[in-house]
Amino acid sequence: MGVVVPLEQRTEQETIEPLLSLVAEDMARVNEAILVHARSDVEMIPELAGHLINSGGKRIRPMLTIATAQMCGYRGTAHVKLAASVEFMHTATLLHDDVVDESDLRRGKAAARILWGNEASVLVGDFLLGQAFKMMVETGSLEALSILANAASVIAEGEVMQLAASKDTSTTEDAYLAVIQAKTAALFSAAAEVGGVIAGCRREERAALESFGRNLGLAFQLVDDALDYSGKQSILGKSIGDDFREGKITLPVVLCYRRGTAEERDFWTRTLQAGEQDEEDLYRAIALMERHSALQDTIERARHYGAIARDALAIFPPSKHKQALLDSVDFCVTRSY
Amino acid sequence: MGVVVPLEQRTEQETIEPLLSLVAEDMARVNEAILVHARSDVEMIPELAGHLINSGGKRIRPMLTIATAQMCGYRGTAHVKLAASVEFMHTATLLHDDVVDESDLRRGKAAARILWGNEASVLVGDFLLGQAFKMMVETGSLEALSILANAASVIAEGEVMQLAASKDTSTTEDAYLAVIQAKTAALFSAAAEVGGVIAGCRREERAALESFGRNLGLAFQLVDDALDYSGKQSILGKSIGDDFREGKITLPVVLCYRRGTAEERDFWTRTLQAGEQDEEDLYRAIALMERHSALQDTIERARHYGAIARDALAIFPPSKHKQALLDSVDFCVTRSY
Repeated sequence: MGVVVPLEQRTEQETIEPLLSLVAEDMARVNEAILVHARSDVEMIPELAGHLINSGGKRIRPMLTIATAQMCGYRGTAHVKLAASVEFMHTATLLHDDVVDESDLRRGKAAARILWGNEASVLVGDFLLGQAFKMMVETGSLEALSILANAASVIAEGEVMQLAASKDTSTTEDAYLAVIQAKTAALFSAAAEVGGVIAGCRREERAALESFGRNLGLAFQLVDDALDYSGKQSILGKSIGDDFREGKITLPVVLCYRRGTAEERDFWTRTLQAGEQDEEDLYRAIALMERHSALQDTIERARHYGAIARDALAIFPPSKHKQALLDSVDFCVTRSY
Repeated sequence: MGVVVPLEQRTEQETIEPLLSLVAEDMARVNEAILVHARSDVEMIPELAGHLINSGGKRIRPMLTIATAQMCGYRGTAHVKLAASVEFMHTATLLHDDVVDESDLRRGKAAARILWGNEASVLVGDFLLGQAFKMMVETGSLEALSILANAASVIAEGEVMQLAASKDTSTTEDAYLAVIQAKTAALFSAAAEVGGVIAGCRREERAALESFGRNLGLAFQLVDDALDYSGKQSILGKSIGDDFREGKITLPVVLCYRRGTAEERDFWTRTLQAGEQDEEDLYRAIALMERHSALQDTIERARHYGAIARDALAIFPPSKHKQALLDSVDFCVTRSY
């Protein structure tokens, strides 16, 4: 277990600023690669892709690739293509997710599927995935390709797993972790690892980056799931209660269900499993989470994985890149909470 | 224009038998690779994938990869993985297509989306695409990866193009060709080309295989589109009139619309563009196609591309593989018609 740093002393902005500043120049190139590879003579493709690409995502995944490549002393340009590939894989996943979840909003804007239809969202997602693989191939790194192709399979596998388990309120914490391991942590871990791989880092460094990314991804997703019941909509570009309305069984729910009374369990079964909700139910859900410290404990779990992520980086010598990556863990754990 | 061989002298089976027999041993390995890579602890994945994989598709695309690799003297095993990748890419496309087209049947069986839902079809398609890329990476051939990644983008782009144009009965033949070039011919051409590439063929041979596959794919799709208005359901595992019911504008329709009277054009606009159909309309559509020789001329167009495909192979020295590939062109053009 790592030591939990007293995060309260720094603002959210102060924990992410060092990373943003180190990767700024390369991220401008990543953004350019993203725009170039979202081009197509079929107008709907850049329109729909642009809607999501320009919607103010934090681009934390490609930043991981850039930052780990820089930390490992990489001097070439292939990390830019890998980072853009990672963001395309993420964007494709979001497009397909919205179709699967029948979401109406994404990052506070109408979901692409609402504006262009489910069909276009599926197909443009496929196109972006194809473009992602094209960019990876251009780097000529079979190792990076292997890591990212594997992540693509694992992510999809995790989404199917979630689909099969999504309506089961009695899901265990372990089953929930297996889902977010696949659907979120796999891409974080691949993003961090390929940065080191393209820089030719040693085997133990590669394993360290993989672990760093994976645990950071777990922490990130846990916080995301807590924020869905407590975050500020304007900051997140995400409605509070999205997961609740979609009947998603996330850790706050898992904890509440397990810690709750029989009557409370009936509440979760009715609202999430059977999908019978009225307007007051979200507030009741939030009240139950407070009663059982479910959000607080979800954040505690996130701190735990954040601590593992920090320790994973310990084998790297001190550098401003290492410090910025360590700071980004604090950002992921404390953002908007 | 190539010379049209008098095909009538041979049965359908006689034109495909030589190819089937040459690739039989390797195709058994391809089938095994397909089964192994469709495995997952998430039960729904092998169930859903197996439904489609075992549904009696002809596997003509992976056969092209195996046959071209053999023709070019390949002695290794990587062609098996490439062939399985090609089939997975095709299967993923079918799964996503059925969601996009809202199809109820696929190869005469209930479409996967009907049995497992649209969500699962999208996600299992994504999983198979990820597994396809993993297998490609395992071959270590960046050239093959580049060809197949490019095909993945082009296919998705073509599907979006079709989506945007699909309800326009006044589509030109060229616009229709651009769609089938992307959605069908691109994978045929990639399948044929990577077989040669893995065998280390010369640049002009590679170009020949690309052209062979592309033109064979065009011929194949044209015949498919004609069969939708005339084929035998039991043989094809495909309902007659699927395209009509889904409002797809295929070449038989394009020809009928352009050759038809104002009243006939109104018929096509009502049934396909506006989607207002009654039970008699399919028979009226077929009658109009007979009046305007639309099916016959669609097959003539297919013969044209088939002839180009045959000529593309001319630079290869005579061999039983070359002859089997030439025969397969005849099969594609004459099957079940």
